[in-house]
Amino acid sequence: MQNSLESGGSAALRAAGDRASLQRAVADRLRSQTKPPGSLGQLESLGERLALLQNTLTPRVEISRICVFAGSHGIANSGVSAYPSLVTLQMVANFLAGGAAVCVLARAAGASLHVIDTGVEGTLDPQLALNPVFFSRSQRQGTRSFLEECAMTPAECDGAMAAGAEQVKLALKDGIEILAVGEMGIGNTTSAAALFAALLDLPPAQVVGRGAGIDNSGLQRKQRAVATAVAKHAHPRPDTQPARHWLEAVGGYEIAAMAGAILAAHEAHLPVVVDGFISTAAALVAHGLLPGSLDVCFFSHQSDEQGHRLVLEQMGVSAILSLGMRLGEASGAALALPILRASARLLCEMATFESAGVSGPSDA
Amino acid sequence: MQNSLESGGSAALRAAGDRASLQRAVADRLRSQTKPPGSLGQLESLGERLALLQNTLTPRVEISRICVFAGSHGIANSGVSAYPSLVTLQMVANFLAGGAAVCVLARAAGASLHVIDTGVEGTLDPQLALNPVFFSRSQRQGTRSFLEECAMTPAECDGAMAAGAEQVKLALKDGIEILAVGEMGIGNTTSAAALFAALLDLPPAQVVGRGAGIDNSGLQRKQRAVATAVAKHAHPRPDTQPARHWLEAVGGYEIAAMAGAILAAHEAHLPVVVDGFISTAAALVAHGLLPGSLDVCFFSHQSDEQGHRLVLEQMGVSAILSLGMRLGEASGAALALPILRASARLLCEMATFESAGVSGPSDA
Repeated sequence: MQNSLESGGSAALRAAGDRASLQRAVADRLRSQTKPPGSLGQLESLGERLALLQNTLTPRVEISRICVFAGSHGIANSGVSAYPSLVTLQMVANFLAGGAAVCVLARAAGASLHVIDTGVEGTLDPQLALNPVFFSRSQRQGTRSFLEECAMTPAECDGAMAAGAEQVKLALKDGIEILAVGEMGIGNTTSAAALFAALLDLPPAQVVGRGAGIDNSGLQRKQRAVATAVAKHAHPRPDTQPARHWLEAVGGYEIAAMAGAILAAHEAHLPVVVDGFISTAAALVAHGLLPGSLDVCFFSHQSDEQGHRLVLEQMGVSAILSLGMRLGEASGAALALPILRASARLLCEMATFESAGVSGPSDA
Repeated sequence: MQNSLESGGSAALRAAGDRASLQRAVADRLRSQTKPPGSLGQLESLGERLALLQNTLTPRVEISRICVFAGSHGIANSGVSAYPSLVTLQMVANFLAGGAAVCVLARAAGASLHVIDTGVEGTLDPQLALNPVFFSRSQRQGTRSFLEECAMTPAECDGAMAAGAEQVKLALKDGIEILAVGEMGIGNTTSAAALFAALLDLPPAQVVGRGAGIDNSGLQRKQRAVATAVAKHAHPRPDTQPARHWLEAVGGYEIAAMAGAILAAHEAHLPVVVDGFISTAAALVAHGLLPGSLDVCFFSHQSDEQGHRLVLEQMGVSAILSLGMRLGEASGAALALPILRASARLLCEMATFESAGVSGPSDA
């Protein structure tokens, strides 16, 4: 017993030493490359993170997949969204037909696309459901309204998280080197805002935005809904982690699935590109369930949705892009893929001052 | 005569009418696509600009080329740079050997690469000079120090601008749909800062940065050099446009070449992706020579070089990326290519609410 403990201890020490020496090797490589030190900015830190995650001086994120998790929301029927709830199902059909923004962006980025029904209201055209990139993992036809009860049962929450983890397993089997996650779910900016308000202890007014474009009275309803939900579901059960409690209480199936995917990716050291506002809520839940799981997360863009900037700051992370987008569907994550790919390639392929015969800084 | 004037007038009116109707058609298309209006943020405005430039509802910027213009600077010998001047030639060799950052990024973006010597000090390895992507258009082995005299003669300035225009001609011949421009030239952040200070009437301290990484005393020398140059070359000749005067007085051959490329691209309606700090100085010169020529310019990134943010603001333009980069070589422009490509593809390929059978905003 003592032996096994000791050997576990030295293995951990060795791993930490390996990591430190890899970190030094990456820093040396970046310094020796033909450019002023640090002049590639964020690309250098992204390359370093990918190297440490993949435990190599030559990271590779060429083969990519985008997973769009879809789920309907009980809260969508409380006047918090500019669009009717049935749009979630219609957009799933649009994803499978190739006409949605994320379809265009996945093709442009050379990424494959998976569409996962984690709990969409309505029935998908059976022909479309036969599409091999579609995964029917529905927990229920939409969550319950969190103004009345918990959005999901513990079993449904487990099921949705497993649907996310399953995609990581499939990705590894398919040789995917980087996984982007995003979502579709009318009503889910309300759900995400409630998660931010509860888990980061922020006033609803600071994390509730217009989502797909709600008007002023809708915005007020949305803020009230979040405030009511946070008050109603307070006092996490002592036997439950707060992140798990709030995920069940005010979350969505697609948010649970993305959190499950991040946790499984952390386990597998698979880089995950997090999309925008709602995907960030999933990352926050994953972080709450397992501090440290954000090591695999690359935050693709700062959404135009009010509150996202503040939330990223509070989480101590920074986004790669800021293009005023607020669509979801993993559209921002798809756009960050080429930048992450470039950061890995720079680390792998750039010449050094020595190999290229280029002089370093003047001694003058 | 009156007839021809009239018909010219109606042609202009017709063109303006065509443009307005295309603009309406683009707006209609963007509104009808399956996304909340405006939710693709900057991608929508970039797509619209590309459409208007190419005069089509279905713009295309798939086939891309990156031109790196290199030139040496007399000012580089006045202690304003962290690197010796000969690095410019060494980096040209590195571009041709495929080891520089821009080589990696061009491959990653699927862009071809041209390297143009507009006036580099020293002699390139004759084997490398045979590379078909290399263009020897040297005006002189480096500009003169603008602390003593004008950096270039009018004839050299014309020659360098023609080298830029030539690349636009070649691009059109080769079916290039979007052209990225960038540079290499030790000392050229000083030259660019002098152009900004002179043309935008800004104090040197606000536009002089550390370039490739000069120390504090070097930074002070650099600020003094810019202040001295602006004072020495003041009073533009009355028969010369200020932009032309300052380009000859304190510019660089590679900056003149990029300005020439932008003017030729404007003539040909070819989209140009402008790199960072120094390339922006070329765009400012082009704007000064021909107001309106910025219509073809897409500013790829906000450089980490002090002053770039201010200059972009003063020019009334915004950058696509902000990644803390300050390398030059068209490295930022290369990273913006996939985003511009995506913006064009979204306009072309996205389904409409009607075609996809997706419901619009609730009437509720």
